[in-house]
Amino acid sequence: MNAPSAPASALSQDVLARLAEVIESRRGGDPDASYVARLFHKGTDAILKKVGEEATETVMAAKDGDAQKIVYEVADLWFHSMVALAQFGLKPSDVLAELQRREGLSGLEEFAARRAREREESGT
Amino acid sequence: MNAPSAPASALSQDVLARLAEVIESRRGGDPDASYVARLFHKGTDAILKKVGEEATETVMAAKDGDAQKIVYEVADLWFHSMVALAQFGLKPSDVLAELQRREGLSGLEEFAARRAREREESGT
Amino acid sequence: MNAPSAPASALSQDVLARLAEVIESRRGGDPDASYVARLFHKGTDAILKKVGEEATETVMAAKDGDAQKIVYEVADLWFHSMVALAQFGLKPSDVLAELQRREGLSGLEEFAARRAREREESGT
Amino acid sequence: MNAPSAPASALSQDVLARLAEVIESRRGGDPDASYVARLFHKGTDAILKKVGEEATETVMAAKDGDAQKIVYEVADLWFHSMVALAQFGLKPSDVLAELQRREGLSGLEEFAARRAREREESGT
Repeated sequence: MNAPSAPASALSQDVLARLAEVIESRRGGDPDASYVARLFHKGTDAILKKVGEEATETVMAAKDGDAQKIVYEVADLWFHSMVALAQFGLKPSDVLAELQRREGLSGLEEFAARRAREREESGT
Repeated sequence: MNAPSAPASALSQDVLARLAEVIESRRGGDPDASYVARLFHKGTDAILKKVGEEATETVMAAKDGDAQKIVYEVADLWFHSMVALAQFGLKPSDVLAELQRREGLSGLEEFAARRAREREESGT
Repeated sequence: MNAPSAPASALSQDVLARLAEVIESRRGGDPDASYVARLFHKGTDAILKKVGEEATETVMAAKDGDAQKIVYEVADLWFHSMVALAQFGLKPSDVLAELQRREGLSGLEEFAARRAREREESGT
Repeated sequence: MNAPSAPASALSQDVLARLAEVIESRRGGDPDASYVARLFHKGTDAILKKVGEEATETVMAAKDGDAQKIVYEVADLWFHSMVALAQFGLKPSDVLAELQRREGLSGLEEFAARRAREREESGT
């Protein structure tokens, strides 16, 4: 893999897309030689267990208010989410497309949220 | 916000950075008008509770093997992780930088994993 | 239901068995009249989502070191675990029997733990 | 420990109270000789991480609809909840007392649930 020469503005695409490629390349690899190959080898439950674990660790890091640990645990959470995506033939770009789709709906969503709130308050 | 005209290669940077801006802009906003403003208003525990919830929903979607639902729930998980990051003055680019840092260490990590495995097996 | 007149030594049996009966009695009941009936009506995913939520809230209460909140959240966690058990025709007495079975194995388990530890340390 | 001779009606009290005593007796014990002593030695975060893990495993077992695994994972979840309680000087009897307190409030709770539901529906 080349040294990162991309400008900051392309950072995430480079990182997530390249990570997804690395993860994909580990599928069917030697479980003794790679952590990700071992996760794929153990199967879906082992991967999902890690997603749950890293969510709990993110919560604990945030309760500690430790910024460095929060970044580290969210990175772990996103990384294992990406292994879960790969297990089902999905990519981070699918998630980004979904997030983008919602962004376009944000006016609508805010309206829905306001309506829901009004309902809560008016009901007596 | 403009319609997405960026090439696929810049997708994630655009989406994550723009979403982080939208999230940040909701801080201190009217809790009745915005879901994210309401989360910030409720505070850290409410945000972290959502991170835990979305992790559980990701696990359930994956157990169902429903690709569309998996994408939807991982999007929810990443979105609420980003609200948690914002709550502590952090950005998705911090997480991407951490993921990139690890990528550079991958040779080392694979070596460490192999060593750990050898230990498990040799130990008697 | 009678007022609790049982001595402390029979507390848990009374509480868990009686709660399991209350939960069971709500199955198929009016979702508008009972929280548990509504959970059963929504189905397995809604029940399991609550198990995940209450685990996250237990973790947050413990990070706060707030004894009263810990008790409250563990009660919520056990309660929703019992709804999950009921969803699959199981009872808290099944869980207690499993815990009792392990207790009888504790000598063996401690030995296994020691062996595992020795392995970790001897492996090079 | 004697073979269980107690009638079924005293099962839970015996099991939970005895387990709490076993757990308590491990505090400060040799981390190499006991799994629970090792958890206490590692500290609060290690204990809470297990609570999160076992909740995720309970969810996965339930999604599989595997009754035996559900019982096993809920036993793990309750067991590690009890280690968390012990870490804060609390006992399962505190949780049972809270559950009993709620049982006494159940009429009230059902009423509250019905009211909440009515509000959701009437709000427009």
